Amino acid sequence: MMLADTAGAVPAFQLEAWAGVRLIAVERALERWITTETSQGAGHAAPAALVEAMRYAVLDGGKRLRPLLVMAAHEAVAVDAGAGSEAALRAACAVELIHAYSLVHDDMPCMDNDVLRRGKPTVHVRFGEADALLAGDALQALAFELLTPQDDSVECLTQARLCGLLARAAGSSGMAGGQAIDLASVGHRLNESELREMHQLKTGALLQGSVLMGAYCGKAAADVLGALEAYGAAIGLAFQVVDDILDVTADSTTLGKTAGKDADNDKPTYVSLMGLERSKAYAQELLAQAQQALSRSGLANTRALAALADMVVNRAN
Amino acid sequence: MMLADTAGAVPAFQLEAWAGVRLIAVERALERWITTETSQGAGHAAPAALVEAMRYAVLDGGKRLRPLLVMAAHEAVAVDAGAGSEAALRAACAVELIHAYSLVHDDMPCMDNDVLRRGKPTVHVRFGEADALLAGDALQALAFELLTPQDDSVECLTQARLCGLLARAAGSSGMAGGQAIDLASVGHRLNESELREMHQLKTGALLQGSVLMGAYCGKAAADVLGALEAYGAAIGLAFQVVDDILDVTADSTTLGKTAGKDADNDKPTYVSLMGLERSKAYAQELLAQAQQALSRSGLANTRALAALADMVVNRAN
Repeated sequence: MMLADTAGAVPAFQLEAWAGVRLIAVERALERWITTETSQGAGHAAPAALVEAMRYAVLDGGKRLRPLLVMAAHEAVAVDAGAGSEAALRAACAVELIHAYSLVHDDMPCMDNDVLRRGKPTVHVRFGEADALLAGDALQALAFELLTPQDDSVECLTQARLCGLLARAAGSSGMAGGQAIDLASVGHRLNESELREMHQLKTGALLQGSVLMGAYCGKAAADVLGALEAYGAAIGLAFQVVDDILDVTADSTTLGKTAGKDADNDKPTYVSLMGLERSKAYAQELLAQAQQALSRSGLANTRALAALADMVVNRAN
Repeated sequence: MMLADTAGAVPAFQLEAWAGVRLIAVERALERWITTETSQGAGHAAPAALVEAMRYAVLDGGKRLRPLLVMAAHEAVAVDAGAGSEAALRAACAVELIHAYSLVHDDMPCMDNDVLRRGKPTVHVRFGEADALLAGDALQALAFELLTPQDDSVECLTQARLCGLLARAAGSSGMAGGQAIDLASVGHRLNESELREMHQLKTGALLQGSVLMGAYCGKAAADVLGALEAYGAAIGLAFQVVDDILDVTADSTTLGKTAGKDADNDKPTYVSLMGLERSKAYAQELLAQAQQALSRSGLANTRALAALADMVVNRAN
């Protein structure tokens, strides 16, 4: 009923059908853009082995939550459905590349040392550590390459703003910063505000950035951006709370990655801090906050954003 | 005399004095921009430990060749000396951040496993592998953050183009691609064209990118860009040929890094391929090509670019 409340007159929004269509476009674009061919005639070809590792890291796996947030925010905001859609597709792929590179580096032996990801051997297990390191580095660069097509398919102002939003979401005061705090926190006891700060950077920044990038492609007004920023903050945090819950309650097959890892590694989590039941209640509270922010945005077409928030909180993996 | 030939009427150009002034600006800007404070009021602070590793990797060391190339190209092209200088300063810092991150990752145990860099312990030796990995990742993101100031100090078209040039220079068909080829080539025999291709990506792309980014800040015309592209290609290759020469002829103290590493690691180099004397002659030939490209550019003020080319080829470390 949360969903119907926010979405208004159409309670039977089919997220799977909506997402299916968008994901076909995203998968095709990723398939096309992660390639040895350069976008320019004069350029050099990328080495095939590196590109193979990059493709392995990105293609054929993952929920694509971040690209879907970009698309949903763009559609919620864009008055003219077609306007900015090339930009939104590029932004959708760019945030997924940043996410994928962070997983590749995060899985490496010097970080989480994980061997299983999305049900497959991790990149360093399959290609070796050096190629995993370089594939991650190259994926980050490719994200910014996608945002800056040298034809006029995306206007310059949009290119510049999208690069700025992505760089800030990915960097030291965003995702990479959050990973550094996470790393330093192993074996330490964090209080709730420290834990929240860590996750706002580690996971929240890129999820929120995805929403804002999508909204930016649709040229959202300042007050709408403010509401969507709050939506992004709520689902960003909710995502991590639910991750912590699933690490305890789900098995490795369902997760597609090693379950129980955080507890084994003595990492602070919401479950270890507030217990399983309070964590579940907190996730629902964050979902309500996200839906309220959507109401506040005044946008008519927020059904996909609402359904994605619901999926983030009520997912099984 | 090569220098006087190209530079025209003023044979006594003082590179050190010229560079000294520019480097003060670059060092101050790097000092100011690699910080825990975010560029935006609303943002989160970056964790101090991560920023410490980032600063260690960048500040107080290095020849700053890439920033100097940005500045020299900008000054050669800019009709109005002040125009685009904020962009050029940001571009100068951005290319140095990309260079610094590549060194941090390159030094890691899974890559070159080097313990000494610029006369100091490498980042992973000092801060641990995980923080080195993250510091490198965050430096790459920060480069794009610097190129996209959210005030109007750099026009959007310039922001977009600089991000595009840097992403392409850094990525799979640039620096990261070259490192992947380098890695795969250990113990293999490359011919001269394969070796050149590797170095054009690994070192050449970012050096050439620095020249083009500087020229772009000064709004260079297409034919000028073409000439500067050729200049950048020549010094990019020359840099690596000289690196290979120095790896054999210099000692670790002079180099500030471990000498003789490439031979020990059975890496293909120009010296191993063509011998020391022919390598030295090739470096001089590339210097002549660079100077010819400058003549061809028709630009009046190429003395700094000419002197930098000379320095690349005739340096002692």
